Amino acid sequence: MTEVRIFGVAGIPEVGFGDDLASLIANRVELEDGDVVVVTQKVVSKAEGRVVRLTDANPSAPAHRLSAGRDPRQTEVILREAARIVRSRPPLIIAETRHGFVCASAGVDASNAPEPETVVLLPVDPDQSAAHLREGLRELTGRTVGVVITDSFGRAWRQGTTDVAVGLAGLEPIRNLTGLRDLKGYELHATAIAVADEIAGAAELVMGKLERLPAAVVRGLELTGEGTARELVMPADRDLFR
Amino acid sequence: MTEVRIFGVAGIPEVGFGDDLASLIANRVELEDGDVVVVTQKVVSKAEGRVVRLTDANPSAPAHRLSAGRDPRQTEVILREAARIVRSRPPLIIAETRHGFVCASAGVDASNAPEPETVVLLPVDPDQSAAHLREGLRELTGRTVGVVITDSFGRAWRQGTTDVAVGLAGLEPIRNLTGLRDLKGYELHATAIAVADEIAGAAELVMGKLERLPAAVVRGLELTGEGTARELVMPADRDLFR
Repeated sequence: MTEVRIFGVAGIPEVGFGDDLASLIANRVELEDGDVVVVTQKVVSKAEGRVVRLTDANPSAPAHRLSAGRDPRQTEVILREAARIVRSRPPLIIAETRHGFVCASAGVDASNAPEPETVVLLPVDPDQSAAHLREGLRELTGRTVGVVITDSFGRAWRQGTTDVAVGLAGLEPIRNLTGLRDLKGYELHATAIAVADEIAGAAELVMGKLERLPAAVVRGLELTGEGTARELVMPADRDLFR
Repeated sequence: MTEVRIFGVAGIPEVGFGDDLASLIANRVELEDGDVVVVTQKVVSKAEGRVVRLTDANPSAPAHRLSAGRDPRQTEVILREAARIVRSRPPLIIAETRHGFVCASAGVDASNAPEPETVVLLPVDPDQSAAHLREGLRELTGRTVGVVITDSFGRAWRQGTTDVAVGLAGLEPIRNLTGLRDLKGYELHATAIAVADEIAGAAELVMGKLERLPAAVVRGLELTGEGTARELVMPADRDLFR
């Protein structure tokens, strides 16, 4: 019987700039080949120093206009991180990041920031961050694993966030069934499953938000291939919701 | 250590109109209190007879216009199921269903249909379907479980589908952390996690699409409460993407 297990990596201390996530994880869990290691964007960004002091942000007029109660310096950071504003109802800003992700606040987050008056940005290149972590885990454990870096994104038309993949390495983010046939012989035309996002959401069920579990392991998926989270971004010419 | 296990319910035969899903599942898995039983919309709809013969559909002019190669009778069924067309690039139709869900083809699907020349619709009231299945499982097994009925939805801005909850019973679909504080004392303002959608996606990782696993069990979540999948629909007045 196919079975997937998801368990948190307990005991990871507060992560700071320069910390080696690979050893923080490898010291606390016995990895197996084929595991997918899931880590939150927040700890990756902290380890990479992607933290901004609000005292360094000088709010522009647009930042004041879009704040509606939020600290305008934080809005300024959001606008700097945004490649494009998709929708806005202040203080809510839905923006496209330079990676192509569409999410609230261009991925800028004040919760679980390392200090007051700081906010955390998305990694510059989360796929590269994932590849780096994967390589580190391979060196430390000898195991070949997949890595998924997650963030909590809202969705159009549905309430609540789900965790999705913003960076990954060592797995194909999309399982493409196009051309395959169902049990009746009907071709599954448009069936491409965003497994990396489902993995991210599954791990969130275990990691939660307040329990300080910044990493989890998903075991039993039998995934193969390579890929990046950028492949999950809908190309502009196919995007009906730009 | 928190651990979640997901396993498929193997051996469920082809489901037809009038079949009792509760006994099909209860006979094949040893349920425990607190399990979440996940079933695909497709088998629920088939059991409920939500299947339409294309020979009964007489395509209107709009159906012809939006078909672009798809059988216009199928498009006619899609238009009948749609409360509102959200976007269209024929043959792609993104529609709002009467339940409020925004998805491709208003949830009408030809894959894994029971016969050629038929398509499968969403259940009339998937939350009621879930409650009914939950009650059946309780009667047969004595166990109190949650039930989530899933379908594969595309997303704005991201490639690939993920499974989401279209019906549910015996759990709260959204874990609301608003008002709680993170480890730094920062209030998690807008943090509401759509756990039911994450459960749906997690189960999809096991159920796949071709292996005929229309049901799975998610164990270890420690969920509580009650709710409906309709709570996952963004109310019109908060929806920036109508």
